[in-house]
Formats: sequence, C-alpha cells, structure tokens
Amino acid sequence: MEKLKKMILERGEIRDGNILKVDSFLNHQLDVEFLHEAGEEFYNLFKDAGVTKILTIEVSGIAIASMAALFFKVPVVFAKKSQSLNLDKDVFKGRVFSYTKNKIYDVMVSKSYLKPEDRLLILDDFLAEGNAMKGLIDMVEQSGATIVGIGAVIEKGFQEGGSYLREKGYNLKSLAIIDEMGEGYVKFRG
Amino acid sequence: MEKLKKMILERGEIRDGNILKVDSFLNHQLDVEFLHEAGEEFYNLFKDAGVTKILTIEVSGIAIASMAALFFKVPVVFAKKSQSLNLDKDVFKGRVFSYTKNKIYDVMVSKSYLKPEDRLLILDDFLAEGNAMKGLIDMVEQSGATIVGIGAVIEKGFQEGGSYLREKGYNLKSLAIIDEMGEGYVKFRG
Repeated sequence: MEKLKKMILERGEIRDGNILKVDSFLNHQLDVEFLHEAGEEFYNLFKDAGVTKILTIEVSGIAIASMAALFFKVPVVFAKKSQSLNLDKDVFKGRVFSYTKNKIYDVMVSKSYLKPEDRLLILDDFLAEGNAMKGLIDMVEQSGATIVGIGAVIEKGFQEGGSYLREKGYNLKSLAIIDEMGEGYVKFRG
Repeated sequence: MEKLKKMILERGEIRDGNILKVDSFLNHQLDVEFLHEAGEEFYNLFKDAGVTKILTIEVSGIAIASMAALFFKVPVVFAKKSQSLNLDKDVFKGRVFSYTKNKIYDVMVSKSYLKPEDRLLILDDFLAEGNAMKGLIDMVEQSGATIVGIGAVIEKGFQEGGSYLREKGYNLKSLAIIDEMGEGYVKFRG
C-alpha cells in the first residue's frame, strides 16, 4: 500500500531495539481515514475467502479490525489480555510474549465467540516475531474454527513472524513489509 | 438511541454487582455496523462543537471513538494503561480506579497528541462512577486543551458519574441511560 509506505517514511520514527514508532497514526493517535482505507485494502485482499468474523488482539489491532469489518460486514472479536468481571469464565487461552512490554501474558477469548463453523481473518497492526499471532492461532485451533487469512498493517520482514506463518501455509498479507531499517532509512520489500 | 436500547434488552446480561454484560456487541465481540451507527449518532449530537480530536481510553473505547471519528474526520487519541517501549517518555498522566478489574492504574497520553488548541470530544463505551472520565479530564486539564463534549454509549444512571459530570457543566450525552436494572429487567431514562 503506497500511502502506508509514504506515511511510514514521513511520520515513523526508528528507535533502538528495532522499534518503529508509528504512534502518530497507528497505535496511540489513530488516523482513522487512513485506517478506513487500510481496512478496504484488506477487504480487497480477502473478500473471496468467505470470512465470517475478524479476530484481533487488544489494544492496537482493534481499530484496523473494526475498519476492515465495516467492509466485510462481519463482527470483530478481540482477544483480551487480562481477566475482568465482564469476561466469561469459559474462555480459550493462549500465551503471548510481548517484546515492547517485555513480559509474557495470557490472552483470552470467550468460547461464545469462536465457533467451529467460523472462517476467521486475523488482523493486527504489527507482525514482527509473530508472538501475538501464535497466541491467537493457538486459541483458534482449540475452537475448531478455520483461519482463512492473516493480515498485518506493517510487517517487519527482518524478523521471523512472516516467514514462520507463510511456511505454515497461512495466506498472510501485509500492507507494507520492511526488510531493513535503521537510523534515517527504511527499505521496503517489493 | 432506540436500536441500542433494543440490543441491551435482547443481548445484554445482568450479573451480580451491577455488571451489565454487553460483550456480544460492545466490548469483546464488536458489532461494527451498530458501532458505525452509534458513531454517526455522536456526530449528530456534537457536530457543531468544533471538535478537532476524539479522546478515549483503551480498550473498549477505541472502536466507538474510531467510528465516530470517521464522521468528524478527525484523529482519535487513546489513553494507554501501561508503559510500553513505543510510548514517549513525555506524557500526561491520570489515575483511574477500575471497578471491573478492581485496581487503580495510571493512564497516559503522549504530550505530542494533546495540545492547548485542541477541542476534544471524549468518548467511551460505559459511564458508571466516571472514574475513567476523571482520569481523562485530569490529563486534558494538564494539556490546556478544551473539552467540548463527552459521550458514553451506555450510562448507568444509578451510579454517580453522569450527575457528577453534568454538575461540573460538561455537555454529556449518553446513547442510552439505564436508571434501574436487576435480574430480568432494565429501566431506561426517557
């Protein structure tokens, strides 16, 4: 997605530890007109996959998943990172290591919202090592639902998540793949 | 909003401790077509207020804030509940007590995204005691921005948040106000 590449170049900041800071439009302040276009892009990529539901993970996946869902006309389910009085006790659980928060945590989805007949598109803002995706996939496997596609807004192609998922046979599409980055430069794939 | 009242009656569940569980459409599974309509409703209520930005708080405020922002054509900023490597060190901080999680936590917004010239609409999924709102308002006051409106999808009118905010003079609009609820019944205001 050319517009996204331009936004990364103009508004992204690269920090130590392979951190790409895009919180001016993707994960703290949200440029919703851009996210709406990105949602439409995911629709164009996966519209023939028979998607019944979009699965994502709190926090930063929610906005892009919701925008895409407007085009697919399906519900979003977001995996939760902490127990709440509002959450069912009967949940699927997965484990995720967060690099940016430097901790392992459980993620949960109520069993009411993942069913064997579901055909899921999993969306998230970033794909790096794929830790969040692995936690989500684990829960989907417990539920018996089918993953018909996986999408990331930004994939860090120099980390392992993308190749891991493609080798496993998932139909993974990222709106921008960064193959290299460093102080003052970003090199995109393709 | 009549459609919302109908959804609460048909799909909500009342639990011990004044918990209204609406996670089938508002805060775990998201009915995005409904949220889009609710976003338009907020637009109709606040379109003349000169809103420059919508402020909300992770997690459950993000989807409704994003949908409303599509109509206002302004960015969303969501306050974060935990420190992350991606977050600026230079932040406004507020304190929030969460009833559903039974703990106090800090919320943060990067100083880059709240400016004295901003005219903010604050949106959230629920308004009960108003603890999250108080934390957000505290940060806005630190920033010097103006709050031109506050909106909640569901207000628990039997708790103190709504009357507190109205007495303070805020232009608060809730899409549904529940004055009483108990096993098997919900009584709406108006």
